[in-house]
Amino acid sequence: MSFDPLSLKYNEAGLIPCIAQEEGSGEILMMAWMNAQSVMRTLETHKVTYWSRSRQAFWVKGESSGHLQELVDLRIDCDRDCLLAVVRQTGPACHTNRRSCFYTAIRDGEELELMQPMV
Amino acid sequence: MSFDPLSLKYNEAGLIPCIAQEEGSGEILMMAWMNAQSVMRTLETHKVTYWSRSRQAFWVKGESSGHLQELVDLRIDCDRDCLLAVVRQTGPACHTNRRSCFYTAIRDGEELELMQPMV
Repeated sequence: MSFDPLSLKYNEAGLIPCIAQEEGSGEILMMAWMNAQSVMRTLETHKVTYWSRSRQAFWVKGESSGHLQELVDLRIDCDRDCLLAVVRQTGPACHTNRRSCFYTAIRDGEELELMQPMV
Repeated sequence: MSFDPLSLKYNEAGLIPCIAQEEGSGEILMMAWMNAQSVMRTLETHKVTYWSRSRQAFWVKGESSGHLQELVDLRIDCDRDCLLAVVRQTGPACHTNRRSCFYTAIRDGEELELMQPMV
């Protein structure tokens, strides 16, 4: 079946969440949002392109930092309301300079940092 | 630092997305939503408990199907607006009986099914 970005289910703001997972290690790097145009640009350029809700603009991941996400595979969930991008990540994915945004765990009621910023 | 579920950032409906990832394999199983009470119940019971937007009710994953998600670790992202649950999944995570909800890939403009339902 031919893929149509408009066949995805977007929220009231026209956005769909996209999880970025590193190829190979399977590490979850981040979650951000895409609109239909972001999905098309990501597929066309193989550079993962989110929609920045704060800036209200396209956000080619790593365009300013150099920490690009190269698309390896884009997947859709059963409800068509969430995307999974399998990527090759250059450097840290997180703006705190950590490899992944999910660096805080909740253990025994306390927050615990699992990762240090990359040097 | 002691963890307070109210310190997370919920959307206008009081919900936060939660990604479920299988311990060990790193496979991403599904994404669903939690409210503050779901987060507390998940941490207390170690059974991953979402909020069903369609039913407007707590959704203890696998409670009716037996396909439970046992919580191994709960993580927060840098913006505190997305959760990652590392889980032990019994059986399929997807309501289509597939191991993961992300069984459709987009390749060369076509949708391709990567997984069959479990038997």
